[in-house]
Amino acid sequence: MPPSPEDDARWLATAAALSARGRPLSAPNPAVGCVIVRAGRVIARGWTQAGGRPHAEAMALASLGGDARGATVYVSLEPCAHASARGPACADLLVAARPARVVVGQTDPDPRTAGAGIARLRAAGIATDLMPSASCATALAGFLLRTTAGRPHVTLKLALTLDGAIALANGQSQWITGPEARAHCHAERARADAILVGGGTLRADVPRLDVRLPGLEARSPQRWVLTRGSAPQGWRAAADITAPGAFGDAQWLFVEGGAGAAAAFLKADMVDRLLLYRAPILVGPGLAAVGDLGLETLSAAHGRWDMGPACRLGSDTLTVYHRRR
Amino acid sequence: MPPSPEDDARWLATAAALSARGRPLSAPNPAVGCVIVRAGRVIARGWTQAGGRPHAEAMALASLGGDARGATVYVSLEPCAHASARGPACADLLVAARPARVVVGQTDPDPRTAGAGIARLRAAGIATDLMPSASCATALAGFLLRTTAGRPHVTLKLALTLDGAIALANGQSQWITGPEARAHCHAERARADAILVGGGTLRADVPRLDVRLPGLEARSPQRWVLTRGSAPQGWRAAADITAPGAFGDAQWLFVEGGAGAAAAFLKADMVDRLLLYRAPILVGPGLAAVGDLGLETLSAAHGRWDMGPACRLGSDTLTVYHRRR
Ligand SMILES: NC(=O)c1ccc[n+]([C@@H]2O[C@H](COP(=O)([O-])OP(=O)(O)OC[C@H]3O[C@@H](n4cnc5c(N)ncnc54)[C@H](OP(=O)(O)O)[C@@H]3O)[C@@H](O)[C@H]2O)c1
Ligand SMILES: NC(=O)c1ccc[n+]([C@@H]2O[C@H](COP(=O)([O-])OP(=O)(O)OC[C@H]3O[C@@H](n4cnc5c(N)ncnc54)[C@H](OP(=O)(O)O)[C@@H]3O)[C@@H](O)[C@H]2O)c1
Repeated sequence: MPPSPEDDARWLATAAALSARGRPLSAPNPAVGCVIVRAGRVIARGWTQAGGRPHAEAMALASLGGDARGATVYVSLEPCAHASARGPACADLLVAARPARVVVGQTDPDPRTAGAGIARLRAAGIATDLMPSASCATALAGFLLRTTAGRPHVTLKLALTLDGAIALANGQSQWITGPEARAHCHAERARADAILVGGGTLRADVPRLDVRLPGLEARSPQRWVLTRGSAPQGWRAAADITAPGAFGDAQWLFVEGGAGAAAAFLKADMVDRLLLYRAPILVGPGLAAVGDLGLETLSAAHGRWDMGPACRLGSDTLTVYHRRR
Repeated sequence: MPPSPEDDARWLATAAALSARGRPLSAPNPAVGCVIVRAGRVIARGWTQAGGRPHAEAMALASLGGDARGATVYVSLEPCAHASARGPACADLLVAARPARVVVGQTDPDPRTAGAGIARLRAAGIATDLMPSASCATALAGFLLRTTAGRPHVTLKLALTLDGAIALANGQSQWITGPEARAHCHAERARADAILVGGGTLRADVPRLDVRLPGLEARSPQRWVLTRGSAPQGWRAAADITAPGAFGDAQWLFVEGGAGAAAAFLKADMVDRLLLYRAPILVGPGLAAVGDLGLETLSAAHGRWDMGPACRLGSDTLTVYHRRR
């Protein structure tokens, strides 16, 4: 029985999930995932390797000795059409491997590919379907935004009290949340390639912003400070966050506050995902989590955020929201 | 097979759940629940009726014609030992009904009973077990606090933004949460016998504080305002919330803010339960949910609240916290 469209969607979601292994190590390349399926079973898997090569398809095909006859290749992003000094184009590798079919979850907006990968497969007589997949688009969000909007995907993380403070009035902010929430936050850092705080936080807390999880120490992202001034050694400064390319090649930017930085990203409508770690404490008027947004009516604030996953972390909670676009 | 201690605990929890039907209609009496079980099956049920009579045991026994031979009676609160003009003592009714056993989930701190109910049953040769039950204590919390501490059980409800505001800086607070959360809040009002806002909220919003749910309109609680001034018609004023009896006979007080009232109850450590309705909006610095608590360190705020149930209500969330005592 050939796979149904639902089967195809599930295999694409599998490829997307696999691609997470390359995030953010694949930088500056997108983290792509590939599964090769024959008779309902996975016969090969690949994901973009550290530094961007081999590509996901190249890894999966290599494990089959370059022979994919009778199989369906699911790939989260359109195979690249441009050969480079670092390796052949994946479209050419696929043509040589002669799969029965290729299913692509997301076209590549990179002008060097942008439809040319799919066209080359079809020209070689390989049945190729583009099946836009929300899982693939989500897994590639950082790459897609960087390529099409000149900015990374932005997660704004806040560690809050029940009544919305990120610090006491006297500035104390350590600790609001407990060790489980902090460990979770470090794992999130390890999935970003850039991390940012505002100048106020840099001066107040001198945070290390590294990944302090056993085995993941090397995954600490590039540190950025939002400031009209200069950055200390080991940091980069961002002043105009809306300028295309302001964060270089970064695909995944993790913003850790404070209130001024949060407001700057929110006012620019650059926050794609909110990560709210909330501790079971009430503190009264302290430092509000978000600086002035210039909001005049409540109705202007509604309709922006869709709730995603939520869980408990020790005595804290984590709730994720996604910007509705 | 006789019931195990786990069976007993479950039947007591059933009695406690049944008692919710009398809340708060049983005022000024406690809302008690009673199930009578024979051979593992419920043969009678009772709960305190509106106005306080008949009592739960009287209702359940009446449905058996006053004959409970061979059965076990589970009752959430110790049977009363004092006859009154409105009816005989439940302990006497039970003695006459000759059950095989009586299981009590909570002693009655009312000095007219306070152990005398259990003693009378035992003196009459009826096997009577006191099995302290958290379900029963929770269901009776309002009555127990009123009797032992001279104050009602207090729920503090707040309708908040993600960043902890209960109103914009310009005072706008309608609406933060959506219709599902507001309907849920009205159902909570119907379970209280007193409802309170601060004088600031009374003046700013002139709230009706009634129950606007079809069929429950008659369940609107007594309205209170926290003020150093006087109360408008139809309202009662509270000035010193810590004075024993400040809220008269009320067992369940529902505090709906604003920030000043919330702070007053929190500072007096009189909030037993937090009900946080949270809308998926960010608004920047508005009116913080809780006024000044005089807190100097974060560690002083920790260790107070245990997370209870949480759910989604439309696009909002509800999270319940209980004061750890
Ligand atoms: N609980 C948490 O999750 C958490 C996280 C982080 C921080 N905090 C707390 O938050 C407090 C600091 O917050 P904060 O609001 O005062 O400071 P902040 O947001 O960390 O930094 C504000 C600074 O960011 C820069 N900035 C803001 N908007 C800008 C824009 N549009 N363009 C360029 N630069 C811009 C300016 O830096 P320059 O002045 O350098 O030009 C400004 O002074 C500290 O108490 C810290 O402990 C808590
Ligand atoms: N989103 C929500 O859930 C929600 C709920 C309620 C209110 N709100 C908003 O909150 C705002 C009002 O909040 P608020 O903080 O200004 O006022 P508030 O808390 O409603 O009332 C403060 C007043 O309470 C009295 N009070 C406070 N502490 C007291 C004490 N220890 N003893 C005796 N009386 C005491 C005083 O009344 P007197 O001045 O009369 O003496 C004081 O002015 C409004 O904008 C309203 O819309 C939002």
